[in-house]
Amino acid sequence: YTWDPNSNSGKPIFMLKEKGVEFELHYIDLLKFEQHAPEYLKVNPSGTVPTLVHGDRKLTESSILCEYIDRAFPGPAFTPTDPAQRYRMRLWCRDVDTKYAPALSVLGWHMFMGPMVRKMDPEKLQRLIDRIPLKERRIAWSTAVNSTFTEEQLQGARDRVAQWVQTMDACLKQSEWLAGPTYSIADIVTFANAYALPVSQPLAASRDLAPHYWEWLRRIYARPAIKKAFELGRTPLAARALEMIKEFAP
Amino acid sequence: YTWDPNSNSGKPIFMLKEKGVEFELHYIDLLKFEQHAPEYLKVNPSGTVPTLVHGDRKLTESSILCEYIDRAFPGPAFTPTDPAQRYRMRLWCRDVDTKYAPALSVLGWHMFMGPMVRKMDPEKLQRLIDRIPLKERRIAWSTAVNSTFTEEQLQGARDRVAQWVQTMDACLKQSEWLAGPTYSIADIVTFANAYALPVSQPLAASRDLAPHYWEWLRRIYARPAIKKAFELGRTPLAARALEMIKEFAP
Repeated sequence: YTWDPNSNSGKPIFMLKEKGVEFELHYIDLLKFEQHAPEYLKVNPSGTVPTLVHGDRKLTESSILCEYIDRAFPGPAFTPTDPAQRYRMRLWCRDVDTKYAPALSVLGWHMFMGPMVRKMDPEKLQRLIDRIPLKERRIAWSTAVNSTFTEEQLQGARDRVAQWVQTMDACLKQSEWLAGPTYSIADIVTFANAYALPVSQPLAASRDLAPHYWEWLRRIYARPAIKKAFELGRTPLAARALEMIKEFAP
Repeated sequence: YTWDPNSNSGKPIFMLKEKGVEFELHYIDLLKFEQHAPEYLKVNPSGTVPTLVHGDRKLTESSILCEYIDRAFPGPAFTPTDPAQRYRMRLWCRDVDTKYAPALSVLGWHMFMGPMVRKMDPEKLQRLIDRIPLKERRIAWSTAVNSTFTEEQLQGARDRVAQWVQTMDACLKQSEWLAGPTYSIADIVTFANAYALPVSQPLAASRDLAPHYWEWLRRIYARPAIKKAFELGRTPLAARALEMIKEFAP
């Protein structure tokens, strides 16, 4: 149960495609707020995506879920065997989830979600917010809907993204992949969030400023599993990613 | 390089003692703000504890560090082999680090650190704050020093801790340890934060309200490695923990 291959929603799709595991996709349309619909809350009462149902198990935390998929299914391994590389892999996942994805989320709300929801009928919007099950998420949505970010907050988010790109680039200058010499969950989790920065944040993520990041993107875009994952998307984000594959890895 | 066996500082001490690994302890006295002293910043420029130096590697993120220690050294394993139990283990670590330890930190600042630092000479205190290397930490310290928490914030933190105890208790009713049938990093990371709740939060963590949590505490306090770890502490927190061992696991 997930949305387009983008950020948290994308992680299990990329992983399952990389492992070569068959799965049944239940598309939850975030743009229609289906993650908070009663039918989906029966699957995941928290109203977040993704949810992986595997036998009688339900797993909902997207980065830890990637480690689960890697271990629970046959196929190539995306966890390094070396303990220091594993540490680096988990550190990348944690930093992406706690520092960098939230900064991108601020910019995404400012550019797309905020203007979109503020155009909606206020009563309908309030009903949609009222059914959000997690109190923190309900407060976050109310705040985001009712107020705009300050220029200071936006600049803070832009600075954070720029710092992220430079951190990735410096790391990828040292090793081919983020955790070391092998493609790992660190690359998949980071790519799920960072795949579109050259178009969404063209100044911070320019080829001149981040040549190793660009080469890394090119290597990942060239992977057949990544193309198959984006083909499951239904929004302009996925269409744009498929265009980027043509441009980056023709 | 770490402080008393408490919260993040305690995780590597408990892990190394459980594994039976010899190590050289460099005690960093947080009550003297030694984590921000120039000598320590040469070891870890972020000015956070713990730091594990292992050969030419420096590792500073305490929960991921536990997984590193488990894999990098010989000795008993504290990571389950089953993928679903591993997922549960990592979910516990993440929830403790992102939701529950921050709530405890609010209560700890309110009760101990806030009153202590507000008694200090303001100029000396400002110099200590100015040398904090991470901007976010500097802002957090300034805020904590200059303002007190609102009753609403304190009640939110108390509610969060009460919810944590109930979540642990419900989990430990189902299985002997937090991630399943075996003692794991989930127990070590959680215990490092939750070992003193019966005395620090006696209402939320009473034996009546949380009998399975109490039995779990008793089993962990009875472990020789845990006693050895607390014997390395130098504050009243560690002395109190050694008293609890006598009471809980005589």
